[in-house]
Amino acid sequence: MKACRGEPVPYTPVWLMRQAGRYMSEYRELRARVTFQELCSNPELVAETTVFAQERIGADAAIVFSDLLLILEAMGLNLDYPKGGPQLGPPVRTGADVDKLRVADVAGDLGYVWEGISATRAALADDVPLIGFCGAPFTLAAYACEGGGSRNFMHAKLLMYGDPGAWHALCGKLVEGLIEYLAGQVDAGAQAVQVFDSWVGALGPADYANFARPHTSALISGFKARHPDVPLIHFGTGTGPLLEQIQKAGGDVIGVDFHTDFAGARLRLGEDQPVQGNLDPIAIITPDVDYMLSRAQEVVDANAGRPGHIFNLGHGILPPTPVDNVARLIEYVHAVTAA
Amino acid sequence: MKACRGEPVPYTPVWLMRQAGRYMSEYRELRARVTFQELCSNPELVAETTVFAQERIGADAAIVFSDLLLILEAMGLNLDYPKGGPQLGPPVRTGADVDKLRVADVAGDLGYVWEGISATRAALADDVPLIGFCGAPFTLAAYACEGGGSRNFMHAKLLMYGDPGAWHALCGKLVEGLIEYLAGQVDAGAQAVQVFDSWVGALGPADYANFARPHTSALISGFKARHPDVPLIHFGTGTGPLLEQIQKAGGDVIGVDFHTDFAGARLRLGEDQPVQGNLDPIAIITPDVDYMLSRAQEVVDANAGRPGHIFNLGHGILPPTPVDNVARLIEYVHAVTAA
Repeated sequence: MKACRGEPVPYTPVWLMRQAGRYMSEYRELRARVTFQELCSNPELVAETTVFAQERIGADAAIVFSDLLLILEAMGLNLDYPKGGPQLGPPVRTGADVDKLRVADVAGDLGYVWEGISATRAALADDVPLIGFCGAPFTLAAYACEGGGSRNFMHAKLLMYGDPGAWHALCGKLVEGLIEYLAGQVDAGAQAVQVFDSWVGALGPADYANFARPHTSALISGFKARHPDVPLIHFGTGTGPLLEQIQKAGGDVIGVDFHTDFAGARLRLGEDQPVQGNLDPIAIITPDVDYMLSRAQEVVDANAGRPGHIFNLGHGILPPTPVDNVARLIEYVHAVTAA
Repeated sequence: MKACRGEPVPYTPVWLMRQAGRYMSEYRELRARVTFQELCSNPELVAETTVFAQERIGADAAIVFSDLLLILEAMGLNLDYPKGGPQLGPPVRTGADVDKLRVADVAGDLGYVWEGISATRAALADDVPLIGFCGAPFTLAAYACEGGGSRNFMHAKLLMYGDPGAWHALCGKLVEGLIEYLAGQVDAGAQAVQVFDSWVGALGPADYANFARPHTSALISGFKARHPDVPLIHFGTGTGPLLEQIQKAGGDVIGVDFHTDFAGARLRLGEDQPVQGNLDPIAIITPDVDYMLSRAQEVVDANAGRPGHIFNLGHGILPPTPVDNVARLIEYVHAVTAA
């Protein structure tokens, strides 16, 4: 929490995106018994999964186990998680498709996420902050247009370029629900939140300015109006060329992906800007622990002792990651950054 | 050719990556009769495909119809093109796997590419330059490690990080064959060449410096030693954070992808650096031709009348692109940049 505010800390805090998940055998065993959606909608299992992961690796924060896409289901799309990635339907391709979507009735349709947060907060050690999260409007709208993941986001861009009014209407509906969703996560017990703009690197800088930034700004300012003192972390991938614009869109902490030079990012954003990042997730899969630690040290060195650094990966943990590597990584960062 | 050298031109020249391909019905009809590999290995069909596309859209250059991955087959990997993307096997994951690969016997195994270039050069209008090409060492090595496309290039990075000697040996074998391959394309009739580092955006800046740049430099300097006066275009995607390093690696013209602000790229690279790019390929799919032209105008405006601009997309043409849009785009860029 102090690092989010840029205050001095006894050592650099660490958490890792997707720190609860498939790389843990306990998670895989649980998933053999329940589906992904059953897990997300069961507050007790959410709490158990979230807290277990935080304790197992010794992270300085926990992020609630959930998924970016749940809100799209609450807006009227069918959502499924087959092997090979999430599927949403029917895909949103026209203004008429946008009109059919409703603003999410968050309390009615997503109350289980808030309950999961309350249960997690109750189960988590008192001194470990709990992070809530949501997707950014661009990323969620892109998922809705594509009907799932995509390499080039053609359908999302064709809607933007061909019917900008429909695109902005889609993002507007998303933002209205997302503010409520994210603010309610704090009411339920989250002490910080992260906005994930996972796919925003698909946009050139002018497209980001025209089609994504206004909606992300609206989300962040709407949330901050409700909870001015709750830190918000704003993260995207492929954002090297967009970093200054992402900062302008808002957020107390700016997430830096691993494609971007961390020392350079700190200079571009201003040395007082709290940042989060940015180790390459593949660097912690290697069996060579000394190599992994040398890569962690490079991130620590790039930060050059400035306050306002939350150590994290520059993207989510991948399934083949050894859990012991993660625990060792966190222990190492704590040790080398201790005053 | 003048634009490659940064000299004044009567209008900005245009060609488009993947300008011969699936978006053309004539190409789809041809492919219904012959496989992708039969097409690549038949010099007459290569010439016909390359020249037809150039004439149909009025491009100022033609790029020989071929594929980045053919050289990996010549090094001993099995290569196939099923639906869903190319497959290479067995994947290269260890030093022993690297040892099994041979340096490509280019004249013996890839002579058909050179013959395709000769046939194309003979068939192409005299005033239209023919561009040869190859993949950059990182991109080809990554394909070899992954066994195909990839989202995160885990196997490539695990080889780099876990056995850097094996990685460098793999790239060294590639470079030795690639210099011969690319230089021979010029001997066969290509007047310029492009090096495609299609996947290099997967690397952070330090990884690029350690694992990719030395090999790309070796390729480019090896080629330039053979053909000092032949322009080389150096292009990669996701390269916003790497642009200065890509320039250092070499090349007469630096390709800029659509994620990167074009005006900013020109300033970062120096205004005398010839550049190629960078319209978003989705912007030419839209049925709204006026919108497409407004996006093309933005690229022209970002170049601000400097010489040394080759207008291109920031990535390859996508299959749903209307051919008439492409022809109209080229005509438009010629008209608005004519002195």
